[in-house]
Formats: sequence, structure tokens, C-alpha cells
Amino acid sequence: MNSFGKKLTMTTFGESHGKAIGCILDGVPAGLTIDESFIQADLDRRKPGKSNLETARKEEDKVEILSGVFEGVSTGTPIAMVIYNTNQKSKDYSNIKDLFRPGHADFTYFNKYGIRDYRGGGRSSARETAARVAAGAIAKLILAKANIVVESGVSAIDGIEASKYDFEHAKSSKLYALDYDAEAKQEAAVLSAKNAHDSVGGVVVTRALNVPAGLGEPLYYKLDGVLAEAMMGINAAKGVEIGDGLASASAKGSQNNDEITSEGFLSNHAGGILGGISNGDEIIVKTHFKPTPSIFKAQKSITKDNEDAICELKGRHDPCVAIRGSIVCESMMALVLADMLLLNLGKKISHIETLYA
Amino acid sequence: MNSFGKKLTMTTFGESHGKAIGCILDGVPAGLTIDESFIQADLDRRKPGKSNLETARKEEDKVEILSGVFEGVSTGTPIAMVIYNTNQKSKDYSNIKDLFRPGHADFTYFNKYGIRDYRGGGRSSARETAARVAAGAIAKLILAKANIVVESGVSAIDGIEASKYDFEHAKSSKLYALDYDAEAKQEAAVLSAKNAHDSVGGVVVTRALNVPAGLGEPLYYKLDGVLAEAMMGINAAKGVEIGDGLASASAKGSQNNDEITSEGFLSNHAGGILGGISNGDEIIVKTHFKPTPSIFKAQKSITKDNEDAICELKGRHDPCVAIRGSIVCESMMALVLADMLLLNLGKKISHIETLYA
Amino acid sequence: MNSFGKKLTMTTFGESHGKAIGCILDGVPAGLTIDESFIQADLDRRKPGKSNLETARKEEDKVEILSGVFEGVSTGTPIAMVIYNTNQKSKDYSNIKDLFRPGHADFTYFNKYGIRDYRGGGRSSARETAARVAAGAIAKLILAKANIVVESGVSAIDGIEASKYDFEHAKSSKLYALDYDAEAKQEAAVLSAKNAHDSVGGVVVTRALNVPAGLGEPLYYKLDGVLAEAMMGINAAKGVEIGDGLASASAKGSQNNDEITSEGFLSNHAGGILGGISNGDEIIVKTHFKPTPSIFKAQKSITKDNEDAICELKGRHDPCVAIRGSIVCESMMALVLADMLLLNLGKKISHIETLYA
Amino acid sequence: MNSFGKKLTMTTFGESHGKAIGCILDGVPAGLTIDESFIQADLDRRKPGKSNLETARKEEDKVEILSGVFEGVSTGTPIAMVIYNTNQKSKDYSNIKDLFRPGHADFTYFNKYGIRDYRGGGRSSARETAARVAAGAIAKLILAKANIVVESGVSAIDGIEASKYDFEHAKSSKLYALDYDAEAKQEAAVLSAKNAHDSVGGVVVTRALNVPAGLGEPLYYKLDGVLAEAMMGINAAKGVEIGDGLASASAKGSQNNDEITSEGFLSNHAGGILGGISNGDEIIVKTHFKPTPSIFKAQKSITKDNEDAICELKGRHDPCVAIRGSIVCESMMALVLADMLLLNLGKKISHIETLYA
Repeated sequence: MNSFGKKLTMTTFGESHGKAIGCILDGVPAGLTIDESFIQADLDRRKPGKSNLETARKEEDKVEILSGVFEGVSTGTPIAMVIYNTNQKSKDYSNIKDLFRPGHADFTYFNKYGIRDYRGGGRSSARETAARVAAGAIAKLILAKANIVVESGVSAIDGIEASKYDFEHAKSSKLYALDYDAEAKQEAAVLSAKNAHDSVGGVVVTRALNVPAGLGEPLYYKLDGVLAEAMMGINAAKGVEIGDGLASASAKGSQNNDEITSEGFLSNHAGGILGGISNGDEIIVKTHFKPTPSIFKAQKSITKDNEDAICELKGRHDPCVAIRGSIVCESMMALVLADMLLLNLGKKISHIETLYA
Repeated sequence: MNSFGKKLTMTTFGESHGKAIGCILDGVPAGLTIDESFIQADLDRRKPGKSNLETARKEEDKVEILSGVFEGVSTGTPIAMVIYNTNQKSKDYSNIKDLFRPGHADFTYFNKYGIRDYRGGGRSSARETAARVAAGAIAKLILAKANIVVESGVSAIDGIEASKYDFEHAKSSKLYALDYDAEAKQEAAVLSAKNAHDSVGGVVVTRALNVPAGLGEPLYYKLDGVLAEAMMGINAAKGVEIGDGLASASAKGSQNNDEITSEGFLSNHAGGILGGISNGDEIIVKTHFKPTPSIFKAQKSITKDNEDAICELKGRHDPCVAIRGSIVCESMMALVLADMLLLNLGKKISHIETLYA
Repeated sequence: MNSFGKKLTMTTFGESHGKAIGCILDGVPAGLTIDESFIQADLDRRKPGKSNLETARKEEDKVEILSGVFEGVSTGTPIAMVIYNTNQKSKDYSNIKDLFRPGHADFTYFNKYGIRDYRGGGRSSARETAARVAAGAIAKLILAKANIVVESGVSAIDGIEASKYDFEHAKSSKLYALDYDAEAKQEAAVLSAKNAHDSVGGVVVTRALNVPAGLGEPLYYKLDGVLAEAMMGINAAKGVEIGDGLASASAKGSQNNDEITSEGFLSNHAGGILGGISNGDEIIVKTHFKPTPSIFKAQKSITKDNEDAICELKGRHDPCVAIRGSIVCESMMALVLADMLLLNLGKKISHIETLYA
Repeated sequence: MNSFGKKLTMTTFGESHGKAIGCILDGVPAGLTIDESFIQADLDRRKPGKSNLETARKEEDKVEILSGVFEGVSTGTPIAMVIYNTNQKSKDYSNIKDLFRPGHADFTYFNKYGIRDYRGGGRSSARETAARVAAGAIAKLILAKANIVVESGVSAIDGIEASKYDFEHAKSSKLYALDYDAEAKQEAAVLSAKNAHDSVGGVVVTRALNVPAGLGEPLYYKLDGVLAEAMMGINAAKGVEIGDGLASASAKGSQNNDEITSEGFLSNHAGGILGGISNGDEIIVKTHFKPTPSIFKAQKSITKDNEDAICELKGRHDPCVAIRGSIVCESMMALVLADMLLLNLGKKISHIETLYA
């Protein structure tokens, strides 16, 4: 229930204000050079407090590998990674100790488990996604062996949409914006909401290049299905589209079908996936994030004992989770694709003959 | 890879034009009265050929239970169900024996497996969804023990959107339309596309009532994540929204948060799910279907040997897969919720004490 | 819970006196020639009623493939196989309708599920093993691509032990005996017990040749661990040994270690497995079967309502389950090894490079 | 592949001479008081260096809980536990850097992964079992809520067998001996082998009391099957027996069947399991351990380059792994039973009705 992936399996642990968060990544092929600084670089893209668009919580998010790597190379055994929490301020939450924050998982966790871990959302905090990013970085190293590249960026914030996708630009943008023409307006929207003690939503586009045709496992581990789960499972995600997504539902078949020639597809409405299996074209997924539920306006809520109350939140929060969510989407896509790459081995009997005969 | 669910597990088999399709449903609690006519009734809602809005293929889709039920009651052992194919016309496909249909899984299956099962899409055919409906019906019988009800309907076709959701109306509508005011236009759009040898997309809304707070398993078997996988994994689905979905990404936090009172939530933007766990409110999921890729217009394509060719399709096809997709969405949601209901047992230590002490 | 294997996954269904038994085998690589007569030949070795050493129940055990094979070749999709029951005599069991048979699963199934399916043991009947044999035959076809061969035979019956293992002889022996010098005595023991309305136990040796070094997944899907589960899970099994097994526990390290030379191991006390991974030597497993619990002597028992009663059994039963258990052990080992063969793909990063670059 | 259990899932990591070993235990019900000293007490029973019968490696095996427990109570989220290695002496292994130790997993890991982690066996070291013991202790806390108790002891060493089983005595015995009359001879055998630079095998008996009838999931997650995997998967295990085990294979049905009365079973040849499901009687499992392969006598072996060589081992090793293996068997049985206890929830439809209606 805290594991993701079938052949490349990430199991995460940790709470926002506990001792540490981390994961065990199992199934990494042996013989892969694991560049710790490569992992750290991705973590640095996700870590909080880099700008005024993000939460003020300061965490170095320094990853430590505890196992599975020997002399810089993966051994085929589980890779455990730990990130110690250093900047918890649990007392920020003391005033909501018995209160549920609207829009949060506080209420549902309490109903499920009967326990109220009020410290920063506990397990439901987006802080856990650091573990995903660490694991995703290793997934990227696996994918690199098949020349697959995964990229991401923010296409929309507060309804202000990108008119073009420039993944290179996103890498150096403070808000990972895909369109530098929209960027200034998007940033202004974030700051405006922040100043109003409110928050905004946003949209992340994630893509993969050079994915060979044939990845994805029908019928219940389809590439699009698993990507949908991966993205919808990220904190605050409320919608997922593959390729043209919602627009497809308004199109005619003759418009939406991607015709094929001996040179390749003539269009990519499908987002690189047909029947749950990659078709060799670019994989495109859009993830829609709701605005951060943690806002500083007074809101109606209830206590653990179902008494009406007013929730007045303190603490440190991102005014727009989609921004730092961008790298998380990228990490999840990398994990999905690396898993699918490994799962696909053995789908043809010739694989057996090639590797064992 | 052909199994769905963790504690209530459906494994399906079969191809469009093979001998039979069916499934094994494992994990059904013992002691449940299994009403075969209830299963058949759901199958009848999905079966093809009921109107001019659907494929002309005539299949009775008569389900036969082979195991797991004794004297009308589930025994706790696997329930195998088989539906024999009776109206295959493989020769309809002889002209595309070596050709890939644009928008279909033909191309990707061939690339994955190296095999071309040209008969009606083989395993990738939506015909397989009959097995899901049979299994989903049993899931509904389980859910009924906790008073949970799952319903569905078509909200949009070819961009013509419902302005209200009337799930009762949908049940008696030829196109399972949620809004009878939009129904005539929607039907006209289907027939117009059909006459033009084209097809249209559509949108299905699925909801669940009376779901107790606490269902869903963080962090990698979240209720919304698994619903997203379930829906995106249905043939032709390209987008999934939970609750307000895409609209949330343009909203402010103060608008999108559902405030809480001692009487319940004041709104349901969240679609009944917070942090991947049900909050006790109505579960709402929207699934967006692309137009049927099987159209009768000539399209560019290639052969197995990568030679350019023109695809001119014959056969019998639905002009709008969203219509019959409606009951499939409903079945998948039932399977997800029944699985979550069972998985939730044992999440509190008091469950152990209640049932064993 | 009714599925076995991680990458090659068999899910079985069916009861002794239901309509049918069968399985879905998922994960068979595409492109494998599936010889139906090869499957039937293994089923014929297991089917009941071939001699006076076996139950008198007459079943043809004719397998029918419903899916997953097209033009004689596997397509990579699930292979469903069904065997209809034809010779049920449920009324044989009418006198024990409410009574538990000592040594049987009757009592435990009733306690677990609250349901009494009295017809021939229901799901707990060894009849279900026919499904395993059908699946195991396909596993052997996969293994053949890597030159792996699996064989079995009966080493001991009623304490009468083989002094040598002749797997060729076993194939033509009525009781699959490994030692023709012991065979006559073993047969006499079976018949003597049968005439006394009693039953006898026995031991099966299963081996695999040409298994490459490296199969088995540490630490919780070890080759020896999974073989132990596979064998112990067969009806009536009570003990499993790998290689020298129990004898190892009385040996010194200097006796038990298999020394290694550049030509190979100098001995095979280990039974071909070290640290849960195959070492390239012959895999040897012994499975110990208790005597058939179904005997015709009067025994003390209780009813569903916990009233004391005398159980006087009718019906048709094998006097020694180890005999027909032999082919089941062979099938299970084939399933385990084929699964491990597939799972091992991707354990080295070079596999990725070989198959994708 | 490094995870064990379906609903209570332990995933372990770590190598003998790496930074740390540990595990994530997922699926612990919320609301369980987690007594860290209880966990440590079990670890102390397993930790090395307590007597001259054990390896001289000194490890405190101090466990640290990183997550999943809040204010002394489980929250339902993953419990991560880490044990840092403190007494590694990797240089002990420098002379076998490129050499395989006979009887060890060195050879097979290298063949599987192409990597030689020579430091004390790396991942294949029995040191990893400390993680199992930590997880097993929490499993025991779950079992205690259903009054289930698990115990273990050593019945035989070097062929010297216990004539009675006294589990109380075992707890205070230096070699966890079940029979104090055999203990002195058993200890002498260990020391004699140690002095001869050799090692001895042994047998562990594990039992569970108060297990309710009905635990175990047919047909491929049977209680006996999973116990067999659990025990055979422990380092150096070569044989597993349930109840009378091998003796059953020489018995007649009339001797081996456990007759039933309204007061309970009249005997327990079955070891408390029928058809893979607990029958309410004592669960009894015997695990047979080979002698430690690490001996100090010169042995023939080969290098990574397949050159003949003589292996002369240094380092610190247990002369009899069965001794410390005893607590590991106990921990594995606890994990299996707690998993089965949780899995059994939902097997009757009445469970749904009780907990949700």
C-alpha cells in the first residue's frame, strides 16, 4: 500500500515532522553506475524554500544511500535511501491539534485510522514526495540505458495557460514554466494569491522521448492506466489527461486518429499510447493540481469530536503546489517507464532465447 | 497483468473473435447470495446491438458461472464466469490482416508481441469489458451489504454537454444520457457521425453514494489513483477527473476547499476524496472517451512490413464508445470500491479485537 | 490467493463436483508454439482411474484452450484452459453432508468460510491439481527454450524406499516408481492398504536439469523458498527437502559444503541451490505426502453443529496420493522455474542494453 | 523480491558490511501500542557475540524507529526501522575478494548479478535476519490482540535430538535448547566442531498457540505453504516439516488422521493445519539447518575468473547457525500468522456487515 511498481518497486516511509523520510527501491538492475550527485540534483529541484513562490520551510533534503550500491555501482539488491528531517516546527500545528483543515487529508486519515497525527499533515504531507524524486532519479539512470528521456514543466497557473511548451526553458525557470511569455503573469498570480492568504492551482505537462513501441502491460497494467494512477496519486492532483485528453472527447474519429506512414505517425493526438501500450511517439501527460488547501483565511471546520470550529492556519506552505509538483510528475513518469521497460522483458519468447541460449 | 484489484481480484481472458471471454473473480466473501439474473441484467445493459447507436454485432452475452457458487451462495472460492462468443465474423477483417488500423492497438500489440491477431482487435477489443461487467455486478452485491450504490451515465457526446445529472433518467435512456434535454441532440450527433462513416467521443460520469469515510489506501493505492487507473484503462479513455477535476486547477484555494461543519461538508469540489481516502461524501469521477477509432473513411496506414497503405475498414462498430462505456465505468468503480472496502478491514487494531477476541 | 507465480501467473478455479475446473495462465511469452497434445499428455499422466492403484473415478480430463493461442502460437495474452467435470457422483457424499472427514480440509474450510460444500471436498479436492498440470505443461514449453528439463518420480511408499533414482523408469511405471527393484513391494503396500480400507503415504523426488546459475530472487522469492511453498501447497504434502535436506542438519560443514573446481561442483549436497539462487547444478526437491485421509474405516468425528459422530466414508479415493502427486510436483517445479527464468530478465543492466539499444 | 507478506508486508534492505540494515513494515493496524523495548528484547536474543557458541562479531543491533509510530502508538503508516552496522571488519574478507566460498551464496550472487560484494556475504549474510526479528516483534504485538503466542527452540544439533520440547527452558538456554537433558551434549558438539575449525547443523521447532481455526488462504497462499517458504527462505535452511512431517509419509491413513470429537482433536499429527488452513490446534513446524558453510578448513574453490584455488577462510562465524536461527524462525512464523490474521478479515460477508453496517 506504500509501494509503487511491479518490477522496479519503490516503498516509501516517513512523515512530514517525523525523524526522517525515505524509501527502498527494489529491482534496480545490477551494474548500473549510481551517481549520488545526480540524485541530489533532482532533490534540489524539489526541495522547499528556494524562492518566494514556495514554502519557507528550509530543508536541505540531503539523501543518504544506506544499501544496494557497492563501489558506486548497483548490486541488484535493494537501495535504501534516507532523508532526515531537520527543519520541523511541530508547534506551528499545536493550534489545530484537534481540528481538521478543510481540503486536507486530516479528516480522512482520522476517519480511516482513528489517529490524529497533526504535525504538518503527517504521512499525507507532500514532503513524502522527496522520496519519490530520489527513486525517480535512479529510474532515469535506468531509462538512460535505453536512451529514454523524461521532462516536465508547468503549463498553467491560476488559469493562465502556456501557448507553447519549451522544456528547456522550464529547467531554468523559478516556477518551471513551459512558456516564458506566460511566466511573468503566472508568477504574479502566485504572489497575488499568497498576499491574499490564498492559493492557486496549476497544470503540469510531463513527456518522455525515445520510448520504444511496446511498453505497457495489457489489460490491467496499461501504460496510460498506470500513468494516470501515478499522477492522480500525487498530492493535490485532480485530473489527468493522456495526449489530447479531454479535447479528444469532442473530436471526430477522423480528426482524432493518428494516421500512420512508413515514416511514422502523422500526428500525436494519442499522446504516444494506443491500447495501453506505447507506440514509439512522444508520451504526453497533463496533470491538473488543485490550489494548496493550506490557506491562511479563516474557514469553517470541525474538531475530532465533531464540534463546529473555525480553522485559522499557521505554518509554512506553498501557495501553488503545481510548481514543485512538476519534478514529482517527472519522477513518477520515470518510475513508471522504467518499470514498464523491465516488465516488457520476456514478452516475446525470443527474449528467452537471446538471453539464455 | 490481466488482473485487477488486490483483495477482490478479477483476472480476465479472451479475445474478440476467440472461443470465449470471461474472468475469475477471487476474494468474494463467502455467504453472499449471488443472483445470476442480476449479473445478466448488467451484461444486458452492455451487450451490443440494442439500438442503431451501437455496433450491429449480435451477442447474447449469456454468462455461465463455472465455480465458486454453491446452492446460490458464494463459497469464498474463485468465481469463474465464461461468456461464449457466438457472432464472430473474422472474415470481416481479412482485408486488414496485415494492416494496422489508425487509432487502434493493432500497431502497438504487434510491436510488443510480434503477433498480429487481426480478428476484431483480438485481446484489445472492448468486447473484453463484458467480463468486467460480470465481475462488477458481483462487486455491487458486496457493496450493497454496506449500502453503497454505484451509478453512471453519459454527460456529453460530441461536445454536447449535459446541464444536469439525472442518474435515474440515464437508466432508461438509449444512450444512457444524464440529461434528457440534451439527449436528442446527442443522439443526432451520433447518427450524423455514423452516416458520415465517422465517430464521436463522449464523457461518462460515475458516482457512488453512501461510501463510508476511510476507504482508500495511502500512498500508492489511493482511492483516486486507483479510480484513475481503472477508468483510464478502459478502451478509448483519454482523461479522468475526480470531483471538480480540471476546474480545480483554475480555482483559488478559498473557492476549492470544502468547508466542514458538524452536519457534513458544505460543498463537494473534492468529489468525495481527500488525500486518496473517501471523506463520506459522494464520489464523483468523469471519464473522457475519444471517438471510436474504427471508422469507415479511408485512412493512411502501414502494413506489418512497414509499407504505406490505405486502410478501408469493414466490420461492425459502435459510432460512440462512450455510450456502452458507461456501464463499464460503473462496473470498474464497483470493483474498486469493493476492493477498498475489503482492504480497509484490519486498518484499525480494533477490527482484530472485534472479529477475533 | 488462488494465483501462483509473479511473472508467469496461474490462477485456478473449480471444485471437485462443480461444472468445471481450469485456469488462466498469464505471462506466457508471445511466439511460443503451444502443442495441445503435449498438454493433454501430461494431463493423461495425472488423470484418475488408470489402474487399481488409483481412484475409480473416471475423468477424461480433456483440456480446452479458450484464449491466448492463435494459429497454434501464444499471443502473449492470457491462456484460459477449462476441463469440464463429467463423472461427478455427488450423492456419494450425501451421508457426510453435515459431517467432517478426519484429516480433511472439510473442518477448516467450514470454519473459515462458514459454508459446507460437501461434494467431494469442493475446492480442497486434489482434482484442482489438473489445472496445475495443464499450466505446468506450458511452463515446460517455455523452459524447453532454455533447454531446461523437469522430471519426477516416486521414491518411497509406505516407508519402502528407492535405493536408486531412475527417472526414465518412472515414466513407464504404473506408480511412477524411481526404482524398479522397490516397485513390486511398493505396489503390494498400496494394494494391501487398499484392501484393509486404509491408505499409505509416499515420497516424490523432482529434479530439474540444465538450470542456468542465477535463477531465484533474494530474499523473499528465493528459488528454494518458492519451491518449498509450491510443494508444501500440494494436497497432502507435509514435508519438503532441498538437496540432502534433513541429512544436512546432521552433517558437518566440511562434509556438507560442495567444493568447487573450474570443472564444476564436486558434489551436490545443496540440491543445486545456494542462497536461494540456482548454482547451475541439478535441482533436487523431495516432497513427502501423508497417506490419503479418505479411508473407509470408521473414525470419530463431529457434525457442523459440533455433535459427536462416526464418519463412515463412501466415494472413490486414491489409496496413495503420492503416486498421482508425482506429476503435480513436476508441474509445480516447471511453473516455479519458468517464473524464475522470466523474473531473472532485467537483473543485469546489460539485459536492458541488449534488448533495447 | 525483498518483500514478504501480502497485507502485513516487510521489505528489508542492507548488507552485512554496509552502512545499515533495516526494514519497512507496512500494514500494521493503527492504534497498536509499539513497545520499542519489546522489539529490542527480541533483537537481543538474535544479536551475535553473546556466548562462545556464536560468532565473535560484536553488534549492539540497536533498532531505531524512523516513522509510523506517534506518541507510542502505530498510526497505520509504514514503520521504518534501521539498525546501523558498527562492527564491520571488511578486511577480514580481503583474501577472498575474488574467490567463492564453498557452500555460500557468493557463487550464485555473482552469477546472477555479475557483481562480487565480498564483504561478509553482502546481502546474503544472515545479518539481514535482524530486520526480520524487528518486524517479527511487531507482528507478535498484533498477534497478542488475538491471544496468539509464538515460541521456538532448538531440538537437535549435530544429530543429537531432544526427547522432549520444553519451550520455557529454551528461553533461558544459551543454545535455545528445548531439552535440557540433551543440552550439554549438544553444546559439546558445537564446541568440538568449532575447535576442529568445522561447523554443525541443527533443527529448530517453532510453534504457535491459540491460533483460531480458519487462517490460511487457499490455494496458493496456504498457511503451510507460506510457512514452508518462510522457513526455507531463512539462511541455511534445507528442510521443512509441518506436524509429523516426514513421519507422515510412512504412516497409514488410520494412524495419521486426527480424529475429531466435540471436545477437539484427539491427536495432532497434522501440526494444526488441514488443507492449508489452521484447524485451531497447535501449529508445529520444524526447520532443518545445514552446518554453517563458513569453516576454517582449506577447501577447493574457484575465482571469479574460474581459476582453481584453495579457499582459506578468516572472519568471524557461528559454528551452528541453527542456534540464532531459532529466533528468526519464531519471527517468521509471527509475520506469517499476523499476515494471515489480517488477510482472513473479509472472508465471510458477515465481516462486512459487522464492521460497516
